[in-house]
Amino acid sequence: MEMNIALLPGDGIGPEVVAQAVKVVQAIGQKFGHQITFKEGLVGACAIDATGDPYPDATHEICAASDAVLFGAIGDPKYDNDPKAKVRPEQGLLRMRQKLGLFANVRPTFTFPSLVHKSPLKLDRVDGVDLVFFRELTGGIYFGEPRGRNEQGTKAFDTNVYTKEEIVRLARMGFEAAQGRRKLLTCVDKANVMATSRLWRETVQELAPEYPDVKVEYEFVDAVAMRLIQWPKAYDVLITENLFGDILTDEASVISGSMGLMPSASLGSKVKLFEPIHGSYPQAAGKDIANPLGTVLSAAMMFDYGFGLKEEAQAISEVVNLSLAEGFVTEDIAEGGKAYKTSEVGDWLAAKIL
Amino acid sequence: MEMNIALLPGDGIGPEVVAQAVKVVQAIGQKFGHQITFKEGLVGACAIDATGDPYPDATHEICAASDAVLFGAIGDPKYDNDPKAKVRPEQGLLRMRQKLGLFANVRPTFTFPSLVHKSPLKLDRVDGVDLVFFRELTGGIYFGEPRGRNEQGTKAFDTNVYTKEEIVRLARMGFEAAQGRRKLLTCVDKANVMATSRLWRETVQELAPEYPDVKVEYEFVDAVAMRLIQWPKAYDVLITENLFGDILTDEASVISGSMGLMPSASLGSKVKLFEPIHGSYPQAAGKDIANPLGTVLSAAMMFDYGFGLKEEAQAISEVVNLSLAEGFVTEDIAEGGKAYKTSEVGDWLAAKIL
Ligand SMILES: CC(C)[C@H](C(=O)O)[C@@H](O)C(=O)O
Ligand SMILES: CC(C)[C@H](C(=O)O)[C@@H](O)C(=O)O
Repeated sequence: MEMNIALLPGDGIGPEVVAQAVKVVQAIGQKFGHQITFKEGLVGACAIDATGDPYPDATHEICAASDAVLFGAIGDPKYDNDPKAKVRPEQGLLRMRQKLGLFANVRPTFTFPSLVHKSPLKLDRVDGVDLVFFRELTGGIYFGEPRGRNEQGTKAFDTNVYTKEEIVRLARMGFEAAQGRRKLLTCVDKANVMATSRLWRETVQELAPEYPDVKVEYEFVDAVAMRLIQWPKAYDVLITENLFGDILTDEASVISGSMGLMPSASLGSKVKLFEPIHGSYPQAAGKDIANPLGTVLSAAMMFDYGFGLKEEAQAISEVVNLSLAEGFVTEDIAEGGKAYKTSEVGDWLAAKIL
Repeated sequence: MEMNIALLPGDGIGPEVVAQAVKVVQAIGQKFGHQITFKEGLVGACAIDATGDPYPDATHEICAASDAVLFGAIGDPKYDNDPKAKVRPEQGLLRMRQKLGLFANVRPTFTFPSLVHKSPLKLDRVDGVDLVFFRELTGGIYFGEPRGRNEQGTKAFDTNVYTKEEIVRLARMGFEAAQGRRKLLTCVDKANVMATSRLWRETVQELAPEYPDVKVEYEFVDAVAMRLIQWPKAYDVLITENLFGDILTDEASVISGSMGLMPSASLGSKVKLFEPIHGSYPQAAGKDIANPLGTVLSAAMMFDYGFGLKEEAQAISEVVNLSLAEGFVTEDIAEGGKAYKTSEVGDWLAAKIL
């Protein structure tokens, strides 16, 4: 198979972790006989520094012409500490999602037996958690108009807006995912308060009969925020709007004890994007110490969700598990054992695949 | 002191737990020489059943004429399972908050040494947590206009709106609370995405110099959703908008391991309202098994925040701690020891005060 992959390393540790995923992807290509070409683009703070734009047109063209995008992380403290900065890295992220039509963010939370003791939760609560969020990513209050201030600047407003169509396409992905998993779908909303949430609930209720094998539950966002900590094993697939998804996927990410390893996918009509959920971690940048496994597992998701190649995805998961089992890992999870460099872990994984 | 207290027992276990708080308040009145009169009103599902309105005018008049409101819980499954019900108990709650001007919801999270082992979090993470949320309660997306659907019903929208004034009065409460505590204030927003959040952050930044002894931190809502579980002890006072507060206070409530005991206050310009954070728990209604301690501690908050009577509040906290220490508690926290009835716990607490 021929694959054109856009690489957006981004800021901070992004370039270092993406470089390891590239090694792994190349090894997979060699082993399974795929022809893979990479094209790199700028995004985030580094793109602002170079071009004044956090998501330059040149980068968009590379992504739009690709079969999949492998993304690192963006963000730089120099922009975080200046709330009045006119251009911010995050704007690039939001524009990229919208221009590429990446309307579904897929965020699994699962545990690694060797890391689950790092969870802030007690073992019996979190052991074996296996859930996945489908977060709507290009609608809601992130993009709704009008938004802004009144003339005097004393009043601010945002608009949350959803069309049925936007809900349907996201919900279908959730239903289909549930069919391939434990067949439980939780629709997360605030239908007791919000008009948009009532449309979400109604729309999901209308779709449900088409998926008779899936059990559908409706739960308020505040209740889910509690139950995610009390008993996360109760969940299988969760679907929700952009803002609730932002909050809940981050909440869910810390319960596994291995946030640095969690991958994610953003799916759309054509291009798909894959990235670790961790941030740009500027303190570690350039030190060759960042954990590349989240990005490597995002590459596994790319083969699975992006190209429908489950065997290749499986091969990557297996070498990741092997590196955990053998302790060939970076300092954040070395646990007193020898700590390897980011680049050493990448080399090791690629060599094990071949 | 003369006190007129409005009692709104509400639905489910509400009447049973409020009845115990009344015993305790009466005992305090007797001991400290206060003249306390109670007036009862209907709210919630029981009010719909009796009058068709979840917050009848008669109830509002009782509350508006009172010095403080003691509230139980509302909600009945017969309304939850009918998303198209025209009148819902929650509407009463929202209308009550707005009509009484209860713009600040105060939700402490703290631990009881004898119960902290029930937390889903590991002991070292949660032991000694002591934080308090000030959630804005009468603005934001809960009340913003326009809200609804387009004509064809294929598009829904909500409006999030905040004025500077609304932010200032809530933030000042948070700053003042921080001054009396560990002097750390966290402003929770999504200023990287929402215009309302940028007004929140700006307004808090403007106020900060007036409280030079308070350290102010600004954190995104998604980051707080994570850190609340990873290291809740990092927080002291948190201020936030209505919707974020709804989600985060519920998330925070489960970390202590004693959700059934957590009290809350809703403060406004004149009347103040006090209620346990637990729900109406219909399965337990009428069985005399519900835990009354959350409502009793809400009565303690009433003496403190409502009447500025710290000694009375302290006396209530002390008997609650005594009941925990001596195991004179309801079945939910009896832990294999003898379980007492709701009414027995109330009688015991009142007797210990006298
Ligand atoms: C950086 C921010 C705009 C972004 C979001 O809120 O979507 C981030 O939190 C995320 O979840 O990817
Ligand atoms: C019942 C509901 C409308 C309410 C809210 O969202 O405010 C509840 O969740 C709460 O937090 O008191």
